[in-house]
Amino acid sequence: MNKGQFIVIEGLEGAGKSTALETLKECLTKQGIDFIATREPGGTPLAEQLRDILKHYQDEAITAQSELLLMYAARSQLVENVIKPALNQGKWVLGDRHDLSSRAYQGGGRQISMDTLNQLRDLTLGNFRPALTLYLDIDPVKGLARAKARGQLDRIEQQQLDFFKRARAVYLDEVTRNPQCIKIDAGQSLDDVQQSIRKIVTNFLHKPSYDY
Amino acid sequence: MNKGQFIVIEGLEGAGKSTALETLKECLTKQGIDFIATREPGGTPLAEQLRDILKHYQDEAITAQSELLLMYAARSQLVENVIKPALNQGKWVLGDRHDLSSRAYQGGGRQISMDTLNQLRDLTLGNFRPALTLYLDIDPVKGLARAKARGQLDRIEQQQLDFFKRARAVYLDEVTRNPQCIKIDAGQSLDDVQQSIRKIVTNFLHKPSYDY
Repeated sequence: MNKGQFIVIEGLEGAGKSTALETLKECLTKQGIDFIATREPGGTPLAEQLRDILKHYQDEAITAQSELLLMYAARSQLVENVIKPALNQGKWVLGDRHDLSSRAYQGGGRQISMDTLNQLRDLTLGNFRPALTLYLDIDPVKGLARAKARGQLDRIEQQQLDFFKRARAVYLDEVTRNPQCIKIDAGQSLDDVQQSIRKIVTNFLHKPSYDY
Repeated sequence: MNKGQFIVIEGLEGAGKSTALETLKECLTKQGIDFIATREPGGTPLAEQLRDILKHYQDEAITAQSELLLMYAARSQLVENVIKPALNQGKWVLGDRHDLSSRAYQGGGRQISMDTLNQLRDLTLGNFRPALTLYLDIDPVKGLARAKARGQLDRIEQQQLDFFKRARAVYLDEVTRNPQCIKIDAGQSLDDVQQSIRKIVTNFLHKPSYDY
């Protein structure tokens, strides 16, 4: 049996990740591909508990270091207990965020060094990487306005604009470095975004990378 | 106002840490020193929640990496939100376990590299260190027998004997490297252990180190 593929959607708040995931699911379903959908932080009982802490904890200030370590603890649980077993069973895995989010938010946003981020990635993931990452690029001003219109902002979404500008800069930098990370202009019309996703996935299905 | 001092008790299960802490408290109380007592993992609302996960989580296997990251997340919360503020107010802090436990249990026991442990210590603690660590040295066979007699073992206490032998080897190695970490033979009679503690603390009170 072939191994499954791990495909990730990334982007700032309000970039349209949920809609993109639906489009992605439709593409795979049409091709008869068996998949599961995950999200980060979260996706296992323990990781969901950590997600709740990361997004909504109010009893105590969470240090930037602790936030980072909890993100990677959740990631380790998800990758080892859910993603790798699914891939080994031949299932595809769709991820709503993955390691790149930590690089953008904790690296860019919280300004934790990329050296530290690389060390934690090595520790937690070894050389496990997504086969394809779709990065939905949005101006943070526009994205945050969309996120606010959607309802109350969580602990991380309440950061200042500069935080998200730094996060976006990391995303854009990673796109230029990593050919398996593809940028989609999330400022386009919904139709155009969906069409871009379908095109990228079709290309990927014809020539998937098995590098992870 | 003088800064407080951070004193830590370390040792394997069944080494007698609780009794040693009581002796330590008596010594400080007699000297009229204002102190707080903490424990690791734990000591803050969030860190206690992580402690509960680390000791009793059963819904899902916890990866060695995740265990390590949760330990350091809890430590970051305790040091930044409790220990440093107390020391800055001139209070002393007594710690039931600290960073050395991670080096012994996750480094020795789980065989995670000391390089990784050093990186996490740098990230989480910078150059913050206890002024004094009392390591209660016990043969793991004897210590585990004591711990078993005390009641049900938690998730980490249920490890095999070899795990604790490796942990002890790290403790013993650290004692030889670090002059602020003092070994006490926990196989002695209770009276002798208490007397050793009183003597060490008296010496320390006359010549404390302000290196941290």
